Amino acid sequence: MKNYVIKGNICYSKTSKELCMTENGYIVCEDGRCAGVYERLPEKYQSLPCYNYEDKIIVPGLVDLHIHAPQYSFRGRGMDLELIDWLNTHTFAEEAKYADLEYAKKAYGIFAEDLKNSATTRACIFATIHTPATLLLMEELEETGLKAYVGKVNMDRNSPEYLCESSAEKSEKDTEEWLIESRKFKNIKPVLTPRFTPSCTDELFERLSKLQKRYGLPVQSHLSENLGETLWVKELCLDIGFYGESYDRYGMFGDGCPTIMAHCVHSGEDEIEMMRRQKVFIAHCPESNANLSSGAAPVKLYLEKGMKVGLGSDIAAGSALSIFKAMVMAVQCSKLRWRLYDQTVLPLTVEEVFYLATKGGGEFFGKVGSFEEGYEFDALVLDDSRIRHPQELSVRERLERLIYLSGECHIAAKFVNGRIIFREN
Amino acid sequence: MKNYVIKGNICYSKTSKELCMTENGYIVCEDGRCAGVYERLPEKYQSLPCYNYEDKIIVPGLVDLHIHAPQYSFRGRGMDLELIDWLNTHTFAEEAKYADLEYAKKAYGIFAEDLKNSATTRACIFATIHTPATLLLMEELEETGLKAYVGKVNMDRNSPEYLCESSAEKSEKDTEEWLIESRKFKNIKPVLTPRFTPSCTDELFERLSKLQKRYGLPVQSHLSENLGETLWVKELCLDIGFYGESYDRYGMFGDGCPTIMAHCVHSGEDEIEMMRRQKVFIAHCPESNANLSSGAAPVKLYLEKGMKVGLGSDIAAGSALSIFKAMVMAVQCSKLRWRLYDQTVLPLTVEEVFYLATKGGGEFFGKVGSFEEGYEFDALVLDDSRIRHPQELSVRERLERLIYLSGECHIAAKFVNGRIIFREN
Repeated sequence: MKNYVIKGNICYSKTSKELCMTENGYIVCEDGRCAGVYERLPEKYQSLPCYNYEDKIIVPGLVDLHIHAPQYSFRGRGMDLELIDWLNTHTFAEEAKYADLEYAKKAYGIFAEDLKNSATTRACIFATIHTPATLLLMEELEETGLKAYVGKVNMDRNSPEYLCESSAEKSEKDTEEWLIESRKFKNIKPVLTPRFTPSCTDELFERLSKLQKRYGLPVQSHLSENLGETLWVKELCLDIGFYGESYDRYGMFGDGCPTIMAHCVHSGEDEIEMMRRQKVFIAHCPESNANLSSGAAPVKLYLEKGMKVGLGSDIAAGSALSIFKAMVMAVQCSKLRWRLYDQTVLPLTVEEVFYLATKGGGEFFGKVGSFEEGYEFDALVLDDSRIRHPQELSVRERLERLIYLSGECHIAAKFVNGRIIFREN
Repeated sequence: MKNYVIKGNICYSKTSKELCMTENGYIVCEDGRCAGVYERLPEKYQSLPCYNYEDKIIVPGLVDLHIHAPQYSFRGRGMDLELIDWLNTHTFAEEAKYADLEYAKKAYGIFAEDLKNSATTRACIFATIHTPATLLLMEELEETGLKAYVGKVNMDRNSPEYLCESSAEKSEKDTEEWLIESRKFKNIKPVLTPRFTPSCTDELFERLSKLQKRYGLPVQSHLSENLGETLWVKELCLDIGFYGESYDRYGMFGDGCPTIMAHCVHSGEDEIEMMRRQKVFIAHCPESNANLSSGAAPVKLYLEKGMKVGLGSDIAAGSALSIFKAMVMAVQCSKLRWRLYDQTVLPLTVEEVFYLATKGGGEFFGKVGSFEEGYEFDALVLDDSRIRHPQELSVRERLERLIYLSGECHIAAKFVNGRIIFREN
């Protein structure tokens, strides 16, 4: 079915301040895109088939700008360490297992199915250094109908021998083979993924930079996450002013190269200004930043500067796959940051985190994350009927409640680019 | 069935540092109390009936030291305000509805059923100023089999007219009638509940103090939660050195009077020292303290000083009923506090929050919250089989994971004081 109508209580963001709500309204989907939201269905659409979701709440699909698929297997464990110790103790050992395709098949099968059933419709995903397992992950995801970027990870230094590519040249060669192989996928696209500056030699960055230009690839990596990490980068790169320059000098920091940098908790003024100017997307991962004692990013400041920001689960430094939970944590961490650390940056509001989780992150994928005209039709139909309550509630009240209590509502239907991923009955 | 055996993977705290685990072990329950945990079942118990929970995980029931039952109806809403504005905008208006017994019946029915099905086995609960609705709440809870303290709230100043008792004398009279009526309950006991110092006149405190002594009642209230609130108390009570003295001068601050004070985020050295000396229980409510931008309490410090601490959901300033979520938030908030504010107080560990949620809070109820010999048998049987994983996991790893992912596991059985609250099949 190419064109159809959806009926229900429709909620979406136009800006980070403006939450639009149409009760008992209609969304028209034409060729995978929103043709409009209506209180009354215009004459010309009345012959289209209509999914009537009655009193349920319909929101844009949620976008996860930063998630590590191989780490999904150990989420919620090993949470008493900071970043570098956590990587060395838990993470690298787990990622090394994906050299074994049989293990990868089992683990990525679980990941893809859980992601399909989650509130996420779009994701930017780190795999591991292993090309076969990365292609397998892309296959598993392709079948779900979700849209995602997946990156084979590059790392050729400061990594344990069992998870370190043997040379920059080999890393480049594997990456190019993987890029060519991944042309077969329709929903899943490759993204260049140097793990982070401490893991990549200058030579590797140079080689990846050439691939980036040759294939016109987007880039994802980590930036200014943890104090120990940022100090280490300073030691490793004596010739730069700030961490972000270690990517920028290879043309992999926005400015025409679509780039996501995860975290940006400890970014200084110059780094923030370069990200703003070069339209780098920030993946804000509040649960991860709390779990690894990294801190809390000044997200309200980023929004006020008109920067590009979305949310990330950062599995497994974050334990929750749900971007609803990331919304709540983003508000909570911004409040603690304000109270405990810096009263010049105000806490985030519910409107703002809803925007971040939808249109904010969605922009990395184009016109995604809203129901405005021309946006790709990604939608969740949310059934909150299991959350019993004694009083009448407005749609705005129900929306806030289901964000906070996301574990208690369930997803009755999910659409990506107009295609049904699943629905009840 | 009075005496029986439970089999499974048994986890419980002896101290805040010591987590005991017995895989495929046995707990013997005699007359509602633990007779012992065994790797092999002693001869003398082999004739007892045995519930075999196989590979499931068995933990002590969780204790919620601070929850407002009438606020359950609006949890997860109105989260963009601080304490005093939040009370005036959302909370008092909702609590006023409990003058209507029909509304109370509907709302408390939902609350009691959800609490029964939750991980909580013991709770210390605030009701409202209304005696009939408070008795109704106690009836609803009595039927669940859970054990709880419930308090009719006292407030006779600085409250909206629709939620303010007409005089201290009337408040005392209503409270005494409620105390006498509540003698009929077996599982649910009354607790004296002056809302907090700003809501209670000196005369009311004097009258409640007499009731406390006459009936030997425990006391619960709020302390040093939010900066605005603590400044207000300073203005209201010019003759005291710190907030806690406003309770202490009426004999309602430990020292023989069993007392729970919720929050203690902004307690100074003198207040902390008095709480320690007088064995006041602190209900640490991390989600609430984040949601209302109150801050984060120095819980590790309290533990190091040997103070009495447990966890509270603080519904509805906290949105989550689950004390598993309170455990996770306690760790996360302690990490942010450490990183952003005060490096002298270390973050909490998983072992420590497990202790707080079980034995730490349980101590308010006597020998509760552990499986050591003589402890009342409160237990949860946790089924984490829905959390799929590709690798082998130890019981310790599964326990940490199910705390973090509590929404994804379910409770297969629940016991309080040896009595079955519910179980599958």
